[in-house]
Amino acid sequence: MTLDLTSDVVALTRAICDIPSVSGAEKELADAVELALRALPHLEVLRDGDAIVARTSLGRPARVILAGHLDTVPIAGNLPTTLTGDVVEGRGTVDMKAGDAVFLKLAATLTEPRYDITYVFYDHEEVAARLNGLGRLVREHPDWLAGDFAVLGEPSNATVEGGCQGTMRITITVPGVAAHPARPWMGSNAIHSAGAVLDVLRAYEPRTPVVDGLQYREALNAVKIEGGIAGNVIPDSCVISINHRYAPDRGPAEAEAYLRELFKGQEIEVVDSAPGARPGLDHPAAREFVAAVGGTPAAKLGWTDVSRFASLGIPAVNYGPGDPLLAHKDDERCPVADIHNALAGLTAWLAN
Amino acid sequence: MTLDLTSDVVALTRAICDIPSVSGAEKELADAVELALRALPHLEVLRDGDAIVARTSLGRPARVILAGHLDTVPIAGNLPTTLTGDVVEGRGTVDMKAGDAVFLKLAATLTEPRYDITYVFYDHEEVAARLNGLGRLVREHPDWLAGDFAVLGEPSNATVEGGCQGTMRITITVPGVAAHPARPWMGSNAIHSAGAVLDVLRAYEPRTPVVDGLQYREALNAVKIEGGIAGNVIPDSCVISINHRYAPDRGPAEAEAYLRELFKGQEIEVVDSAPGARPGLDHPAAREFVAAVGGTPAAKLGWTDVSRFASLGIPAVNYGPGDPLLAHKDDERCPVADIHNALAGLTAWLAN
Repeated sequence: MTLDLTSDVVALTRAICDIPSVSGAEKELADAVELALRALPHLEVLRDGDAIVARTSLGRPARVILAGHLDTVPIAGNLPTTLTGDVVEGRGTVDMKAGDAVFLKLAATLTEPRYDITYVFYDHEEVAARLNGLGRLVREHPDWLAGDFAVLGEPSNATVEGGCQGTMRITITVPGVAAHPARPWMGSNAIHSAGAVLDVLRAYEPRTPVVDGLQYREALNAVKIEGGIAGNVIPDSCVISINHRYAPDRGPAEAEAYLRELFKGQEIEVVDSAPGARPGLDHPAAREFVAAVGGTPAAKLGWTDVSRFASLGIPAVNYGPGDPLLAHKDDERCPVADIHNALAGLTAWLAN
Repeated sequence: MTLDLTSDVVALTRAICDIPSVSGAEKELADAVELALRALPHLEVLRDGDAIVARTSLGRPARVILAGHLDTVPIAGNLPTTLTGDVVEGRGTVDMKAGDAVFLKLAATLTEPRYDITYVFYDHEEVAARLNGLGRLVREHPDWLAGDFAVLGEPSNATVEGGCQGTMRITITVPGVAAHPARPWMGSNAIHSAGAVLDVLRAYEPRTPVVDGLQYREALNAVKIEGGIAGNVIPDSCVISINHRYAPDRGPAEAEAYLRELFKGQEIEVVDSAPGARPGLDHPAAREFVAAVGGTPAAKLGWTDVSRFASLGIPAVNYGPGDPLLAHKDDERCPVADIHNALAGLTAWLAN
């Protein structure tokens, strides 16, 4: 399978969508990307597993990273792609192969960009964080990721979304005492007691802090509840999983302390935690980027891999074609205009 | 395997406990019971599946039914039985083979009882109601169950527990709208909404009506709750199973109407329903029974098969050795004194 990087960016989007690459099965697409990039003499190409890194070395005073994941969530009968009117539809068109296609077009055309550029195409973004290909590069090849500013091509309707909120998942285990439901006073109903936790969730008022000029909006939600053993037993346990999204003015320790105070007296376990990232739009390259692509930057509320760049001290933003609300949906689809706009904006910023 | 009905009632209890008869595997014990009863010339013996019915036909003016189930819940390493001090321990000692042993002793010794007696030993009491052996006899051989008053040998600490409460299980499905937990306002959290159902459960005050002289106490409990799809999705559904125990002054229709009013506006489905039974202690045979066994009758709060007799218009009470709170427990055990008391009480009532 070969990719023609001279083709139109929409055709290229469809071509890479039509090579299925559900997480864990990125090899065929990664091979094609590597092959296409190796044909470009102005780029040095590196590979780790199914992550491909390609970079210029022009001695520019700053280096920009353009990063996108190659994998998708499972296909839902929505491949091969179709092009209807001004919309390309199919798995990956939004999340995030249109972004990958834009980066591949830039890689092919910007032989002498204004900044040195490192292109990163990686695997395993849609699955457990420990498998994440960008995380693996951060751990094993941090030198490949050296840079001053990063753009992650996650869908953002081709507007700039700065930073990302942190995410933390806790479980609260509410105890009870089993008994026969005809004599409930011999026990204690854990599900009824869990009502106190739901009270807190229902009364929750989100913080909406402004961080580096962007307004975030926190969230606190039960994502799972499970209690009860059988139809004839008073439940002796009820477990509630709660997801907290917190603005990047707080770190994981502060977020945890906040939750422990909020749910004081409950048995809390932190099961998952990933820090947020400040938007970092004060960097000169970032300011130029925002000016070039236009629009008003917004805060990114979801967690994204920009946080991995933040962990290396590299400010990063999300910028890519497509509506993030359509990611993972069966009718995932991307306006052709978004793809052209993203390519034009990034070209305006990076071309010499 | 043969049973010696001339042996001591405690030895007989142990003998029938030591023949395992987990629901669905009652045959060996049923065979032994049938064989032992067929050896008694004063009884006519009938069989349907693993249910054995034996009866006198002395032309007495009233007929009493003594009924007990032969099956047990699964064995938990607690067989064979042990006798330690004044307690016999092991699966079935409470629920309800001590009661069966008492009835078998009466069957062997009361050749000319004061009332005609029908002994019923049946299968499948500890599993789904539709399998219940007594229910099968009610449907297929109601004539075998003709009688004026029934005693069910369920554990009651060898005191009289009259009637039983009805039981009804409903599910309430609370809807939501899925969304990303970083943007929960795009959806609606079904688990949070389920808090309104828990509010009702937590505020519930049970009725405690007096029915035919016995005080009941109703109950309303969540027995299961389940909501949420994944750690990164706002839950679109939360399902709560609720068990309601209601006093026998209400029927199933009234109980359902009560729940629909209590949870007005919620999506309710009745998944299980069994009516209660009034205590029926005004029958002359019942009054004599209470006088003979002594003690103060109490209301039976749990549902039992007395309700099946009630459906045939036969008043029925629970009366058997053992603490019902130890039924189904791994350390299920029965005081020897209870077994002797039950045998003595019933003998005093039924001997000529």
